[in-house]
Amino acid sequence: MKSFAVGVDLGGTNLRVAAYSHGSEFLETIQLPTRRESGREAILIELCGAIERLLARYSGQFQLEGVGIATPGPMELPEGRLLILPNLPDWNNFQLKNELEARLGTPILVENDANVAALAECKYGQGREYGVESLCMLTLGTGVGSGIILQGRVWHGMNGMAGEAGHIVVYPGGAQCGCGSLGCLEQYASATAVVRMAHERARQGDAPGITHLALKKPKFSSHDLFLLAKAGDVQALEVFAAVGRALGVSLASLVNTLNLELYVVGGGLASAWELFEPEMMNHLRQCSSIFRITDPDLGDGQRMAAAKTFIAPAKLGSDAGLLGACLLPFTVSVSSSLQAQNIA
Amino acid sequence: MKSFAVGVDLGGTNLRVAAYSHGSEFLETIQLPTRRESGREAILIELCGAIERLLARYSGQFQLEGVGIATPGPMELPEGRLLILPNLPDWNNFQLKNELEARLGTPILVENDANVAALAECKYGQGREYGVESLCMLTLGTGVGSGIILQGRVWHGMNGMAGEAGHIVVYPGGAQCGCGSLGCLEQYASATAVVRMAHERARQGDAPGITHLALKKPKFSSHDLFLLAKAGDVQALEVFAAVGRALGVSLASLVNTLNLELYVVGGGLASAWELFEPEMMNHLRQCSSIFRITDPDLGDGQRMAAAKTFIAPAKLGSDAGLLGACLLPFTVSVSSSLQAQNIA
Repeated sequence: MKSFAVGVDLGGTNLRVAAYSHGSEFLETIQLPTRRESGREAILIELCGAIERLLARYSGQFQLEGVGIATPGPMELPEGRLLILPNLPDWNNFQLKNELEARLGTPILVENDANVAALAECKYGQGREYGVESLCMLTLGTGVGSGIILQGRVWHGMNGMAGEAGHIVVYPGGAQCGCGSLGCLEQYASATAVVRMAHERARQGDAPGITHLALKKPKFSSHDLFLLAKAGDVQALEVFAAVGRALGVSLASLVNTLNLELYVVGGGLASAWELFEPEMMNHLRQCSSIFRITDPDLGDGQRMAAAKTFIAPAKLGSDAGLLGACLLPFTVSVSSSLQAQNIA
Repeated sequence: MKSFAVGVDLGGTNLRVAAYSHGSEFLETIQLPTRRESGREAILIELCGAIERLLARYSGQFQLEGVGIATPGPMELPEGRLLILPNLPDWNNFQLKNELEARLGTPILVENDANVAALAECKYGQGREYGVESLCMLTLGTGVGSGIILQGRVWHGMNGMAGEAGHIVVYPGGAQCGCGSLGCLEQYASATAVVRMAHERARQGDAPGITHLALKKPKFSSHDLFLLAKAGDVQALEVFAAVGRALGVSLASLVNTLNLELYVVGGGLASAWELFEPEMMNHLRQCSSIFRITDPDLGDGQRMAAAKTFIAPAKLGSDAGLLGACLLPFTVSVSSSLQAQNIA
């Protein structure tokens, strides 16, 4: 009998639940708005209802592998306790794993959304394309999430908080971050940061395109700025170059620390890849001797090492989180696996 | 029959070789000057001679577990090819592992010295003290080396170059580093950096203590500056505070990325721990929300997470490299072990 899993992508805007059979497409997906105004209990009832419908529908035909949940924001493992969810404040400190296990009577795997997106990208996106089992993925959205996959499984660190590369300090003493620090990558490479940097640039004057956009549409988005830049606006292009510089410096630190085969940049802002890629690669080459040694764009005669370090835009789109949640029951974390080996 | 290993610490100044029986002290150590002026072949003959003497002496009494070599600078694995050794230039690109295996007729494990020091510190230093099996160690010497140990074994990355945290970019566009980048940690937290920063501070004027030291002893060392700072010299103390700031920012990026239990600071400059520790901890707290959540100095009522992140000075001294080389044959790298599991 083939096995299946149920995955949930619990976002601040939408709640998506899917049944998935390994190696195939989604069997079925359910999408509901996350009714934040109704409070946590109402959302939990809807969530459990959707999971139970899918469990009931597919349990006869397939063997249940498990249920995986992707949540926004950091989570403490192995307890599965949510920490701070800016978009779902009444979920702070909530024991999500225990609560769902009690309600559904089945083991639940929980993971933050950046980690599951990285897992999906590794198994079915660029990881498969490049034939590698380890990668680090940066997700450029409202914030900058990130996940590290080592040999096919999420690297959790000691309590599930590994891979917060969005909070690598790029510019000490720089822009204030929501995390309390200054100069985090998130403040230079998220959709929010792009809009902030554009407003800052307009305030400096001599940026007619951005100033015009801001007058026409005071709450313009990163996509509006993307279109302006694509039309050749020099100051809008500068903003995306700043994104590239921050990404390049941060990727250099990741390459120097982790030495993985592949680094993937995803999330909504990654659609501006062509605009930030040149400066990102310039700064990565400048800031990482390990990258220079393994740069795949240099010929073998020039490179010193046999291995290559690839940087690529994500292949999977907005389904990555939901797919990753479905894949969770089919994988084991590196740390639990190593613990299971019980090596002295 | 108890097993033993032979370990080598191949430094730019000294060549140290030891026989070691697991769980005991060194059985015997041999120390020779690294006669760089005689060239690579002469050093290799001395090295192999010393290894063979120890192999012959202890092979009857103990079972040979293997031979481990610690080398300065990066190395490409699994080939064991040295890349760039600033202190041993005629060893660049040398196939150390193959060459020694051919000469000695026994398998050789090679690893860079920062990685083996981290391994020794994990097994017999602060790792044992704190009861953890994972740590990241920064070694503050002439440069800044670093090694990452995950569940008791060296994390190599794809080709042995992981853990080059000395080249995390702390200040983009900052001081020129030997690696070609600007603003690397190594340029703010090595013994070399301390001396450079002190000279820079003296040139700015109004630093009578450092200016006097430089006049009296133009080639003063980081230890001379340490003594000046310990005597209360304000500008010398400022230099060590700058070391602390750079370490704090870099540790924050490591904590946010790796989420390990323990980060150890070793190497000669770590003897100035009391001078740089306050600013290091200030900046770490400021730059890492994950550290703040898991700060062991906060009471359990204030901390959000059950787990704690420790920062500690190294316990093992200059023997860490030699001990780590001896431990290599008793451990397996995480990546090879994961490969051995052959997980789909």
